Amino acid sequence: MRADGVKRAGVLLALAATLGGCAAQRQVLLGRPSAPPLAVDPPAPPGVPPAMAWLYGSGEAAALSEQAYNGMVRYVREVLTAARDRRGRLPSQRAAGTLPRWPASVVLAPGATAASAETVPCGTLPPAVVLDMDETAVLNLGYEYDDAQTARGFDQQRWERWEKAGATRVTAVPGAVAAFHALRAMGVTMVINTNRSIGNAEATAQALASAGLGAFRHGETLFLKGDADGKSGKDGRRAAIAARYCVVALAGDQLGDFADLFNPPGPAPAVGRRMLTAVAPIEARWGNGWFVLPNPVYGTGLGSSWDETFPADKRWKDVP
Amino acid sequence: MRADGVKRAGVLLALAATLGGCAAQRQVLLGRPSAPPLAVDPPAPPGVPPAMAWLYGSGEAAALSEQAYNGMVRYVREVLTAARDRRGRLPSQRAAGTLPRWPASVVLAPGATAASAETVPCGTLPPAVVLDMDETAVLNLGYEYDDAQTARGFDQQRWERWEKAGATRVTAVPGAVAAFHALRAMGVTMVINTNRSIGNAEATAQALASAGLGAFRHGETLFLKGDADGKSGKDGRRAAIAARYCVVALAGDQLGDFADLFNPPGPAPAVGRRMLTAVAPIEARWGNGWFVLPNPVYGTGLGSSWDETFPADKRWKDVP
Repeated sequence: MRADGVKRAGVLLALAATLGGCAAQRQVLLGRPSAPPLAVDPPAPPGVPPAMAWLYGSGEAAALSEQAYNGMVRYVREVLTAARDRRGRLPSQRAAGTLPRWPASVVLAPGATAASAETVPCGTLPPAVVLDMDETAVLNLGYEYDDAQTARGFDQQRWERWEKAGATRVTAVPGAVAAFHALRAMGVTMVINTNRSIGNAEATAQALASAGLGAFRHGETLFLKGDADGKSGKDGRRAAIAARYCVVALAGDQLGDFADLFNPPGPAPAVGRRMLTAVAPIEARWGNGWFVLPNPVYGTGLGSSWDETFPADKRWKDVP
Repeated sequence: MRADGVKRAGVLLALAATLGGCAAQRQVLLGRPSAPPLAVDPPAPPGVPPAMAWLYGSGEAAALSEQAYNGMVRYVREVLTAARDRRGRLPSQRAAGTLPRWPASVVLAPGATAASAETVPCGTLPPAVVLDMDETAVLNLGYEYDDAQTARGFDQQRWERWEKAGATRVTAVPGAVAAFHALRAMGVTMVINTNRSIGNAEATAQALASAGLGAFRHGETLFLKGDADGKSGKDGRRAAIAARYCVVALAGDQLGDFADLFNPPGPAPAVGRRMLTAVAPIEARWGNGWFVLPNPVYGTGLGSSWDETFPADKRWKDVP
């Protein structure tokens, strides 16, 4: 009986773990409590949780990530080409007094709504691309393996230990290494805006370097949770970065990587968030300055209810 | 005891269902048996299976789909712009004897490998975009709701009933309606290449129309399993379509929607398929003529083993 109970708990926790994942951002944003510690780890689930099998094991998810990074490189190349003057100089490379020709940044301006979507000006700032880190620039294979095997659900302290110890057990998201290289070769500064902890800045930079993504420095090209305004929402950090750079592209696996207006107390529940992505000025951004990476394993994209996922008029009942 | 057993079976089947999904293509390609019928449906799982919550309920998946369709429209517009002569005519609109300027099709030529990736010529054929249907052009909300609620696993007969009866219970993938409209306005013919049954051609065309994607005719703009060469692999149909059109873009949620070389007995297991997507000529196609839609719910992207998903040197064991 006890063994059965533990097994069932294991399977249920596997489902719960896949639902909750390691969503550091979500935990912070939604104020969810961490799972209580268990005396004994439940047994590993019989197979890899399906969302993990897809994200970390499939050619389909790899192709989707390559597509996002190829799209980013193509888009940024076009923006830079359009911004160069006849001598090939970017606005940031011109003599004072000449007119800048940057398009606006892709960072929303303070007070912007989904319907207005005004962006901040670029002036003659040098170009940058701003990316989230986890499941956007790197895949957290080591943490997710431990998460799936132990099925304990998200635990902030375990995630902190992972930030400190996991540098060599991440890999770059497919397409990221080539894209970072190509963008830097165009003169673009790559900036990471992540909710990893300030206390682990050094280990986080090591993880990025270990994945082949190059050197990052806290406060210059690496922004962590609490930087700029002490918040977990990223608008404050985006504004601080946009004061130094013309942000020509943003990338992330969570809508909060693009603008805080997607976060609670915004348009939640799920139906509202999903509709917000289709408001015309926002819809036009996907693949055009805003680049989404796939992540069905954890985060703000999970947890929609039956009613939010399957509208009543689209339900079907098979009658054999 | 019996109630407990049924509940546990329900949860396990929910996991198995999410793993197996309604993968019609996969069933055919991998020769997997359908799940045996159960006398009584197990109870619905406590929450929406996480991959379904993400794909059908999240703003993140919606944004990723919008991104793929925006990328397709942008890419095709550039290809058509480059192909027009000074009078704005496409190769298919020019008088006989003038030189065509089409780039090659994005359909691989017979005998092409991932390393060579030769494509078929376009001559002066009119332009088309070729898309898979399920979870590429439409979301099968009705079927997946029934699948998740009953947790019976994939059943070919149930899927056949769904093809016949589900026309009004699908929705268009986010971004698809606008993209179909924009592409048709450019003079591009939209062609669906799906493994739905020939016997259900009429109901399948109704489902596409009901989703707002316009009119499709079997044998002209709608190709079904068995058309052209009697096979479930799509290369034969792609060749038949490429004999009538210059295929400027392909779209799908499964790698087999782009080329049969990804299918068994090809580079399976998962590690081989994933590596194949990164071979240089293939890698360059993602977002540049080949457009992937997200689908962690069913298909060839699921089912990778622990070893295939988490390489030994990337595993981490938390020590609290």
